[in-house]
Amino acid sequence: MNTFGTLFRITTFGESHGPGIGVVIDGCPAGIAVDSTTIQAALDRRRPGQSELTTPRREADQVEILSGIFEGQTTGTPIGLLIRNQDQASHDYSHIEHAYRPSHADYTYDQKYGRRDYRGGGRSSARETAARVAAGAVASQFLAQQGITALSYVSQVGAVAVPVGYEQLDLGLIDSNMVRCPHPETAEQMTELIRQVRDRHDTVGGLVTGVVLGVPAGLGEPVFDKLHAELGKAMLSINAVKGFEYGSGFAGTLLFGSEHNDAFYTDEQGAVRTRTNHSGGIQGGISNGQDIYFRVAFKPVATILQPQTTINDQGEEITLAGKGRHDPCVLPRAVPIVDAMTNLVLADMVLRARANKV
Amino acid sequence: MNTFGTLFRITTFGESHGPGIGVVIDGCPAGIAVDSTTIQAALDRRRPGQSELTTPRREADQVEILSGIFEGQTTGTPIGLLIRNQDQASHDYSHIEHAYRPSHADYTYDQKYGRRDYRGGGRSSARETAARVAAGAVASQFLAQQGITALSYVSQVGAVAVPVGYEQLDLGLIDSNMVRCPHPETAEQMTELIRQVRDRHDTVGGLVTGVVLGVPAGLGEPVFDKLHAELGKAMLSINAVKGFEYGSGFAGTLLFGSEHNDAFYTDEQGAVRTRTNHSGGIQGGISNGQDIYFRVAFKPVATILQPQTTINDQGEEITLAGKGRHDPCVLPRAVPIVDAMTNLVLADMVLRARANKV
Amino acid sequence: MNTFGTLFRITTFGESHGPGIGVVIDGCPAGIAVDSTTIQAALDRRRPGQSELTTPRREADQVEILSGIFEGQTTGTPIGLLIRNQDQASHDYSHIEHAYRPSHADYTYDQKYGRRDYRGGGRSSARETAARVAAGAVASQFLAQQGITALSYVSQVGAVAVPVGYEQLDLGLIDSNMVRCPHPETAEQMTELIRQVRDRHDTVGGLVTGVVLGVPAGLGEPVFDKLHAELGKAMLSINAVKGFEYGSGFAGTLLFGSEHNDAFYTDEQGAVRTRTNHSGGIQGGISNGQDIYFRVAFKPVATILQPQTTINDQGEEITLAGKGRHDPCVLPRAVPIVDAMTNLVLADMVLRARANKV
Amino acid sequence: MNTFGTLFRITTFGESHGPGIGVVIDGCPAGIAVDSTTIQAALDRRRPGQSELTTPRREADQVEILSGIFEGQTTGTPIGLLIRNQDQASHDYSHIEHAYRPSHADYTYDQKYGRRDYRGGGRSSARETAARVAAGAVASQFLAQQGITALSYVSQVGAVAVPVGYEQLDLGLIDSNMVRCPHPETAEQMTELIRQVRDRHDTVGGLVTGVVLGVPAGLGEPVFDKLHAELGKAMLSINAVKGFEYGSGFAGTLLFGSEHNDAFYTDEQGAVRTRTNHSGGIQGGISNGQDIYFRVAFKPVATILQPQTTINDQGEEITLAGKGRHDPCVLPRAVPIVDAMTNLVLADMVLRARANKV
Repeated sequence: MNTFGTLFRITTFGESHGPGIGVVIDGCPAGIAVDSTTIQAALDRRRPGQSELTTPRREADQVEILSGIFEGQTTGTPIGLLIRNQDQASHDYSHIEHAYRPSHADYTYDQKYGRRDYRGGGRSSARETAARVAAGAVASQFLAQQGITALSYVSQVGAVAVPVGYEQLDLGLIDSNMVRCPHPETAEQMTELIRQVRDRHDTVGGLVTGVVLGVPAGLGEPVFDKLHAELGKAMLSINAVKGFEYGSGFAGTLLFGSEHNDAFYTDEQGAVRTRTNHSGGIQGGISNGQDIYFRVAFKPVATILQPQTTINDQGEEITLAGKGRHDPCVLPRAVPIVDAMTNLVLADMVLRARANKV
Repeated sequence: MNTFGTLFRITTFGESHGPGIGVVIDGCPAGIAVDSTTIQAALDRRRPGQSELTTPRREADQVEILSGIFEGQTTGTPIGLLIRNQDQASHDYSHIEHAYRPSHADYTYDQKYGRRDYRGGGRSSARETAARVAAGAVASQFLAQQGITALSYVSQVGAVAVPVGYEQLDLGLIDSNMVRCPHPETAEQMTELIRQVRDRHDTVGGLVTGVVLGVPAGLGEPVFDKLHAELGKAMLSINAVKGFEYGSGFAGTLLFGSEHNDAFYTDEQGAVRTRTNHSGGIQGGISNGQDIYFRVAFKPVATILQPQTTINDQGEEITLAGKGRHDPCVLPRAVPIVDAMTNLVLADMVLRARANKV
Repeated sequence: MNTFGTLFRITTFGESHGPGIGVVIDGCPAGIAVDSTTIQAALDRRRPGQSELTTPRREADQVEILSGIFEGQTTGTPIGLLIRNQDQASHDYSHIEHAYRPSHADYTYDQKYGRRDYRGGGRSSARETAARVAAGAVASQFLAQQGITALSYVSQVGAVAVPVGYEQLDLGLIDSNMVRCPHPETAEQMTELIRQVRDRHDTVGGLVTGVVLGVPAGLGEPVFDKLHAELGKAMLSINAVKGFEYGSGFAGTLLFGSEHNDAFYTDEQGAVRTRTNHSGGIQGGISNGQDIYFRVAFKPVATILQPQTTINDQGEEITLAGKGRHDPCVLPRAVPIVDAMTNLVLADMVLRARANKV
Repeated sequence: MNTFGTLFRITTFGESHGPGIGVVIDGCPAGIAVDSTTIQAALDRRRPGQSELTTPRREADQVEILSGIFEGQTTGTPIGLLIRNQDQASHDYSHIEHAYRPSHADYTYDQKYGRRDYRGGGRSSARETAARVAAGAVASQFLAQQGITALSYVSQVGAVAVPVGYEQLDLGLIDSNMVRCPHPETAEQMTELIRQVRDRHDTVGGLVTGVVLGVPAGLGEPVFDKLHAELGKAMLSINAVKGFEYGSGFAGTLLFGSEHNDAFYTDEQGAVRTRTNHSGGIQGGISNGQDIYFRVAFKPVATILQPQTTINDQGEEITLAGKGRHDPCVLPRAVPIVDAMTNLVLADMVLRARANKV
C-alpha cells in the first residue's frame, strides 16, 4: 500500500503528470510548531533545477497545508499536504506510451495493473518522493523537540569516495556545495565527474551516508520491526536504491568477533557508552544511545539521453531515443529524501516506544 | 510488533529458555498439503548440533501442529506451531543476569523494557528464528504450487568468497557440505577457516546469497512496500544481519547508466526478458519475471569464548568470561532462515497481488 | 487512526473550517470506470441545503480528482480526492472557542489533544463524512462490476416508523421524497414531525435501514473481522450513531432457537437459500448469499437552537446561546453516508476474499 | 485476520476439536504482574459444565503460559497461552461432516474455503472465545494498574429483563447466581425460563449489559476508531451477537435533542461531569470520564436438540437430528467473554492514547 509507518504514518498519492502529489500525515502529536515555511525549505532542497548538476526542469513545488495545523501548531488530526504539478499538460509523452523503457517500471506496472499512467513515469516517478520530503519535514519538527537530528550526505559518486568516516567530517558543510558532500576536495571531484557524465549523456550512481544524532537508548521494536530493519525498508523504498547497510555493514563481515564487538564502558558523566561503534548505534534492533549511521546505494538512473534498444508493449523491438531534461546523478537530490525517510522512521519509533512504558 | 506480513502473516512468540517458542501463521490459503514432516525437515536444517561447525548444543526442535491443518491440508484458519525448548532449566545464567554482554541486546532490552529474561538472550536469542523457519516451510509449500522456489547459500565466510555468480553454480549442491556452499573448493576453504576461528575461540561472519526462481512478473507493491524493500526488511530482521543488497547492489554504484540498464527483448518463445539482470528481477519494486537475487551480510556473532571487558547494570566495569557452546560461524545455519524469510515475503506478495486484479 | 479498511482502504483528512477535506483511496483495483460526475452525484445527496428539512447552509461540495484516475479509469494507484471548504473564514466561532457544548466532542478533544480547532467542530464535525461519501462512490463503482448493490433508507424518525420490512418496499422510491423514506405515507408523517421539531428549535433522531443485494456467499473473515462486525464498526464510526443491529437484531433475543434458525433449502434453480433470513445474510461472520440487512440508530443531533447551560474550559458555568443554521434531523443526509460505509466494507471484503482462494 | 487490536494486540488460533486453542498477546507493557492463576480464574468463569444451566460437557480448560512472563511479570515480549482440548478424538462428528446445520457457519465456511474442519464447528466454534478470555485476563491486570474496571452481567433472557439500570444494581452480586444477573429476583425468573427452555430442547437468547468504571477522559481515536466503534466491533465479533448499542442506544432515537443532551457541570471536587449520561461516557468517539455502558444482543444459539430440516453439501434435503450436550442459553457464559473483549479494547486504547501526548 501507499502507507508508511505504524503510529507516525504517512499515505502518499499522486502521479508525475497528474494534477498534483500529496501526503496525509496521521498520528503526529498535537502541539508541534509547523508552518508551510518549514516544509517548503525541505522541498526546496529536493526541487529540480537547483544547480547545473540537476535537471534544468523547474518546478516550484509549492506546498499547501490542507488540514491538521491550526494557529501554527499541529492539532493531532491528520495533516494533508498538497503540491500541485506544473505544466503537466505541456509535455509530449506519446513516444513512451507503448514503450518499455529499460530498467524503468513501465513493463512491471503494466504486468501488475494491466495499464499505467505513462506520462513521465506516473506513480513510479521519483516525483512521489516530494510528498515524503514534505512529510519528513513535519517529522523532523517533532524529533527536534526530542533532541534527535537526522543528517545525510553524498559519500560517494561513481568511484569518487569521501576518504574518512562521518565522525571526522564537519556535517555543517553538507549544503555548502552542489553535491551535498561535506568533504570539500571530494565534492569538487564529484562535481567534475558528474559534469563529465552529463556531457556524454550518461548517468552515474553512488552512496549516501546517513547519521542520526541524539537518539536515546531504547528505540526500536524487537524481532521484525528492528530499528535498522525499518530504516532499511525505508531506504530501499526510495527510487533507484539497490542496497543498505548500517554500522560496520558489509565490511564488518571481514572482521572477527573479537574485533567487531563493541565494549561497553561508563564515561565520566556516568553515561553508558561503547568504545567502538560497529553496531551503528543499534543492538538487537534497539538503539543503544550511540550515533546511528548507515549507507544507501543508488544505482545510476535509468533515463539516459542515448538511443537504447528495447521492446514495446506488443513485444516488438524498438529503438528509444532519449529526450527531455534529466538528472545525470540523483545523489545530491537524494539527500533530502534520505533525511525525510530517516525522520519518518525515527518519529514512528519514538511514538511506538511510548506504548511500552508501564 | 512480533508480526510479519500483510496477508500471509506470521506472529512469533517465545524465549530461548522458556517453555517453548512458536508461531501462528494467518492467511495461508486453504487446500495446501502440509504435514509435520515438511516442517520438521526445514527445522532440521536450522537445528544446532548438525555438524562440527555449529554449536554442539543439541535440541531436537520437534514441531507440534496445534491448529489449522485438517486431514493433511490447510483449512484457511490460523496454523499454530509449537516447538518446546529442552532442558531450559539446566543451564546456569546467573553470570549474565546483571552483565551487559558486548554487542548483544542485554543493555538495549533493559533500556526499552526495564527488565529482561536474561536466560540465553531470552527473546533476543536467535532461537526465535526456529519459529520463522517452521512458518517458512508452510509458505514454501504454498509457493511450490505457484512454481516459485527460493534458495540460498553461503557465498562468503570472512574473506573466503565464491568466485562466481549464482547462475554459474549447481544450486543442487547447497546441502552437499557442512557450510552450505555449492562451490566445493570454496566450501573446503570456508570449512578450514571456520575450524581455525573456532579453535582460537573467535567467530567469523560472511554473506548469504539468495535466489528466487520462477517468480511471475507483477509481484510487489509500489512505493513503500516494494518487493525488494520487503525482502530487505525481512533479511535485516534476522539476528546479526548488517546489510542487504539486491541485483547489482553496492557494486552497481560503480557502473554508468548506459552499462547498468537492462535491455528488454522478446525471446524465441515470445517471453519478455532482459539481456542483463542488474535489476535483480525487480523494477520499480515489482518483479519482472527474471531471477531475483540478493546478498545478506552477517556480522561475526557476538558470543566469543574469550574474556571481555564490559559493564554490569550498575555501570560498573566487569570482565565477562565466555562460556557455553556456541557457533563460531552462523552462516551455515543462516541459510534456512534466509530461505524462510524469502518464502514468507513471496507468499505474502502472491496474496497481495491477487487483490489488484480487476 | 484516520484510516478505514484493510485492502480497499481510505484515509480521510480535513476540518470543518480549514481549507478543505479529502480522502486518499488506496487499493482500488485498476480498470474501474470512475469520473468526477459519479463522485459528485453521491456528494450531492449528502450536501447541505438540499431541502427545507436540512440546514440551509449551502456548500457546493465540488470534488476534485487529484490522482489515480487516468483516461477515465482507475490505475491501481491511490486516488486522491479534494473538496474545498467554502467561506471558511466568514463565520464567527469565538462564542465556542472556550465553551464545551453539551454532547459535542469539544471537551473530549481538549482532553485528548490539549487543544482543538474549535471552528465548527473542526475534525469532529460531520463534514468529514463528505470525504467518506466521495470514497464510497468509487467503491460502489467497483461493486457494481461484482453485481453488488448497497441501499439504505430512513426507516424511523422519532417514533414515526415504517410499518413493514425492507422486502415489502419499493426501494426505487428512496429518493422520491425529502426524508429518503420509500414508504410514502410514513415519509409524509416524518416530514411533518421534522418540521415541528425544527420550528420549536429542537432536533430529532431515528433509524436508517441498510440493505445489500447481490452479495455472493463467502465474503467476510472469521473470528474478529466478521462481515457484520466490520459493518457495525463502520456504522458506529458515523457521527451521532448509538447502535447497530443486523438480521433479527435486538428483537431476535425474544425468539427461541427453534423459531430463529434459518432452514436451508435448494431452490428450483439449484441455488442454496434459507426459508427465513433472521441471520441477515451472514452466518459465522461470512455472507451466505441471502440479502444482508441491518439498522443503525442515530441520536438527535446535539446542536439545538436553544440556550443551554454548560461549562467553559476553565470549568465555569456558562449559558450557550444556540445560533447558526443546523439540521433538525440528520437522517435524510445520513442515508448516503450509510451507503458509503456499506460500500467501503463490502469492497474491502471482496478484495480480502480473493486472497483465500487456492 | 485472526488478530484484534492495534497496540495491545491478540492473535488467536485453534479449532474446537484439534489439539488445542491459544493466543499470542503482543504489545502488553512490561512489568505487569500476571500468573496462570489470574488467567485460570477468568477461564473458569467461561468453562462449560459450571452449573445445570450450561452444557454438562466438562473441559478443564487449563492454561499453560508459553512465553512472555518471567519471574511473575510480563517482560514486554509476546505472551503465548495454550489451552489443550480434551478428548478431542472421542466424539463422532460423521453426522455433520456433510450437513449444513441451520444458522451455523458450515455452509459459509465451505463457500469461503472450499473445506472445513467439521468437528464441533472447528474454527467457528465458540470454543475460540476461551483464548480471548485468557488474553482478556492479562489486559485486565494491566487496566487494574490504571484504575479501570470492566464488568458485565446478564440483563435480559428472552423477555425476562432486569427492571432497573446498572447504576441501581449492586454489581458485586454478578457471580452470586448461576445466570450472572445481579438483580436476584430477576435472576430467579431467568433461571426458571432457561430450565423450561432446556427441558423442551430449545434455546433462548438475551442481553448482556457492559459497564466500564474508572475510565479517564481522553481515550479513543477520532473518526474511524472511535472508542464505541471498537467496542461495537469487539462485541459483534463474539459468536451469536446480533446487535450493540451504547449509552442511550436505540431508545435514544425517541428523545429530542433538548432531552438527550448531557449538560456539563463542575462538581464539588472540581471534576468535570455531566448531569445525565445519555452519551454513555463517550463523546465524539473519545471517553469523557463518565461511566461507559453498553448492551449486547445475543440470539438463541443455533444448536437445538430437535430434528431440523436442512440440506447437505450436495444440496439434498436432509433431516438433522440434534444430539450432544449444549447450552440452552449462552448468556451466563457470555459474561466473561464480554468482559474480555471490553478489557482488550480498553487496554489497546490506553496504549494508543500514549502516542498522542506531546
